[in-house]
Amino acid sequence: MAKNKGTRRPKAETPKGFRDYFGAEVSERKAMLDTIAGVYHRYGFDPLETSAVETLDALGKYLPDVDRPHAGVFAWAEEEAGDWLALRYDLTAPLARVAAQYRNDLPFPYRRYAMGPVWRNEKPGPGRYRQFYQCDADTVGAASVAADAEICAMLADTLEAVGIERGDYIVRVNNRKVLNGVMEVAGILDPADPTKFEAERGIVLRAIDKLDRLGEDGVRALLGKGRKDESGDFTEGAGLDAPQINAISRYLHAAQDILQKVMRATMDKSLADATEGLLLDETSRLGPSQSSFSDAQLLWNRLALSHLEFIAEGSKVGAEGVSELETIADLLAAQGYGPDRIVIDPSVVRGLGYYTGPVYEAELTFEITDEKGRPRQFGSVAGGGRYDDLVKRFTGQEVPATGVSIGVDRLLAALREKGRIGGSVEGPVVVTVMDRARMADYQAMVGELREAGIRAEVYLGNPKNFGNQLKYADRRGAPVAVIQGEDEAARGVVQIKDLVLGAKIAEGASLEEWKAQPAQTEVPRGELVAAIRRILDGG
Amino acid sequence: MAKNKGTRRPKAETPKGFRDYFGAEVSERKAMLDTIAGVYHRYGFDPLETSAVETLDALGKYLPDVDRPHAGVFAWAEEEAGDWLALRYDLTAPLARVAAQYRNDLPFPYRRYAMGPVWRNEKPGPGRYRQFYQCDADTVGAASVAADAEICAMLADTLEAVGIERGDYIVRVNNRKVLNGVMEVAGILDPADPTKFEAERGIVLRAIDKLDRLGEDGVRALLGKGRKDESGDFTEGAGLDAPQINAISRYLHAAQDILQKVMRATMDKSLADATEGLLLDETSRLGPSQSSFSDAQLLWNRLALSHLEFIAEGSKVGAEGVSELETIADLLAAQGYGPDRIVIDPSVVRGLGYYTGPVYEAELTFEITDEKGRPRQFGSVAGGGRYDDLVKRFTGQEVPATGVSIGVDRLLAALREKGRIGGSVEGPVVVTVMDRARMADYQAMVGELREAGIRAEVYLGNPKNFGNQLKYADRRGAPVAVIQGEDEAARGVVQIKDLVLGAKIAEGASLEEWKAQPAQTEVPRGELVAAIRRILDGG
Repeated sequence: MAKNKGTRRPKAETPKGFRDYFGAEVSERKAMLDTIAGVYHRYGFDPLETSAVETLDALGKYLPDVDRPHAGVFAWAEEEAGDWLALRYDLTAPLARVAAQYRNDLPFPYRRYAMGPVWRNEKPGPGRYRQFYQCDADTVGAASVAADAEICAMLADTLEAVGIERGDYIVRVNNRKVLNGVMEVAGILDPADPTKFEAERGIVLRAIDKLDRLGEDGVRALLGKGRKDESGDFTEGAGLDAPQINAISRYLHAAQDILQKVMRATMDKSLADATEGLLLDETSRLGPSQSSFSDAQLLWNRLALSHLEFIAEGSKVGAEGVSELETIADLLAAQGYGPDRIVIDPSVVRGLGYYTGPVYEAELTFEITDEKGRPRQFGSVAGGGRYDDLVKRFTGQEVPATGVSIGVDRLLAALREKGRIGGSVEGPVVVTVMDRARMADYQAMVGELREAGIRAEVYLGNPKNFGNQLKYADRRGAPVAVIQGEDEAARGVVQIKDLVLGAKIAEGASLEEWKAQPAQTEVPRGELVAAIRRILDGG
Repeated sequence: MAKNKGTRRPKAETPKGFRDYFGAEVSERKAMLDTIAGVYHRYGFDPLETSAVETLDALGKYLPDVDRPHAGVFAWAEEEAGDWLALRYDLTAPLARVAAQYRNDLPFPYRRYAMGPVWRNEKPGPGRYRQFYQCDADTVGAASVAADAEICAMLADTLEAVGIERGDYIVRVNNRKVLNGVMEVAGILDPADPTKFEAERGIVLRAIDKLDRLGEDGVRALLGKGRKDESGDFTEGAGLDAPQINAISRYLHAAQDILQKVMRATMDKSLADATEGLLLDETSRLGPSQSSFSDAQLLWNRLALSHLEFIAEGSKVGAEGVSELETIADLLAAQGYGPDRIVIDPSVVRGLGYYTGPVYEAELTFEITDEKGRPRQFGSVAGGGRYDDLVKRFTGQEVPATGVSIGVDRLLAALREKGRIGGSVEGPVVVTVMDRARMADYQAMVGELREAGIRAEVYLGNPKNFGNQLKYADRRGAPVAVIQGEDEAARGVVQIKDLVLGAKIAEGASLEEWKAQPAQTEVPRGELVAAIRRILDGG
């Protein structure tokens, strides 16, 4: 019990909600970031790297579901000046700061990409970490929704580039202005005084965002008095009256209707079927398509839009939102991005508080098996939208901006689920140590191998127990082990052991048994590199 | 004066001591990290990525020159549990935590590399930032100094791989045990009670580390009562008496002597000359060398060692330190790493508190011009050493470990000074917008270009002022601009402007003047990609 003599030992643990990444986890993420950067680069985006630390002031408070001041971020006061510093919680807030700080030096529109970890001071949960990677692309200074359309197209290209097949993902697009239109109709947005009902609108948006999870009844409860969840926790509602709730419900119905059909269509990979009955009163306003999907498919997004026009009737901002979505759908259609990849979906909200126009998210549509063995859709891996007021916070001048953030860690998890990645790092050739005094000779061997571009290392542990050296080579995934004892050294030869061929080395086999295996050959010392090269090349 | 109406605007600034990296700064760092990772990988090191945040407890207090508790790190208390969290100040402390946490799962010796930012809560200065990149490689679980020798060799290889030529750098190696031997002789290390005189030893080590900068008199002052610097600030000394100071001075003399000769030899690239007079009473204990440097050169490190043997006489730990350095020098010599790349240098100390054996650092030896126009050596870009007690902090069991950290940002600065890097990101082809209603057509053009692997973008700013579009293309470094007005569209052609050829577009030139330049050609719309490919390929 009284083991600690004097000094207390620190715990060898990551803080709660943080984790370590080893070997292939690191290299696979790096490969994905490289691929994404390649697509972003081809689209004309330039890299930007800001530091992890910003003033709390510059970051602002835009995290979803955060009511307490400073909650959600890791923050601390500077020792002397007393300023508050904080770890960035996303890559968008730092970009807004950069766009304001360098507004006279950057070429606008400024297309930039950024990748790196972000930090959220949230309650950690299974698979939910407080540090995770984001990979963002944003266009600052472009008022045209052509910029939003471009980001959506790039998002689709990016997902395919990292290995998500077409049909396994869908990019869903909506517009905050449409949502604002609905809230105007419901009487909780006054165009004359946009600061009124701000809290109510926040609750309504978060409620709509939960439609998938809570269903219509759950959302209606949140629009009204509030809702008690399964654990008994009560969430305060927006306090709307019945006609107001009905106005929003009408929107939710349309959203669900469209969503279900989109989902069905996506899964069937037969949008023509899904849209069939609905195309009767629609006429194509689009020219002849040169792409692979049919006119009927192209009309799908049109159809969603006509639904929305009907709902947002009577709201100027709502009509503007629908019109912007039309432009986006047309631009995408003209470039061949049909609703098999990008759809208009009125249920998309996005949690962050700063969006002002189009919002979009990418969802993986294939099913995975959850911890309890039940099938479920993988869900969202990327999201973004337009935030025309973020730079204005600093400068007072409106600077339009739009962009997307890819959740790289979730995307990696998805590819692992699909078995597309999940290898291990290529193991090194291990040169064993039979004679400690001849370490320089063994080092010379790995030197030659490395010179030839072959990954190689000398066993640097205690060489006494040769079995441990073999176990080590095994655990390192070594393709080849090299052995040179006194006898071999005297004769000017080395033993080369093909560990892939002779993979089933029994733990604890003696050196003699091990040497007797057919996968072992003796070659002159001078042929070491060539012989190993032959084995690695599979000949 | 009263411009702020109601809400105060946040300042668009990075916190003091932090900065942003744009375009080529980001891609050049990435390229360097990739190159370094390639060398580390070939040596058998596996990637590890820990999070930026650790418990303050796990990090420990090993920063150089830090006397106040928590000083030097960015730390904050967790909201609920009250634990202290902190940003890592290096990549070694997190590795020690990992080695302890996963001690039953990792293959030992565990060779790992890590790269990423670290944070120091220090007073920022010119070119001195509070976030910077490190790129580390460490071997945990190898007691043999063969592991230290390997890291030194790898460090030399890495510097050459990133573009530092042989002769422009030197890896200097010393051993903390030798320094401890000298301190034992001086009476401030009692092998029977190593906790005695800890503070004094800290001051002595830091003083020796400053030999370069302060000269012998400055160091002697710090060994005695203390020293007042130019600004008038007084630094408390170790309080040693004259015989003690003389014992350490004797060491400093030897160090300076060796250092000066090494420097002269390195600059002359003629070690044989520099060592000539000193080789008389030395005999080669080494076999015939197969490498490119002469026996006289090989003896250089031997010579340094014989000096040290003399000085550390009478100290067991000192003798052990010299013997370890001999082994390292022999191993390196056998692999062809002579003192033209790696030298024994008794003045190396390394600031961090956790080193227990060999310490090493890489210095760039070429001269640069400082802010005031004076020539100076570029200085240290990497350092490391053996820290056998760091893992023990957690587990109670000694786990030997050694490793190096490369200061990537300094290394990048050095390559920029030498003009080896410092380009800009390849500019995209810019498709201009002559007719806003035909945005989809312009988007189709960039779509085709990207499909062909060509970086391309549509101008997404306000297209009204065509001059602004050309200025934008110029600022983006676009090699080609594409123009298609109503007329061209009707005729099914596009204008292609070679901006590299016609580089001298006057600012504000009219569209007509611009079009008249010879570098502009008209091609059928269907030949857009082929025509641009021809220009980019330089034909």
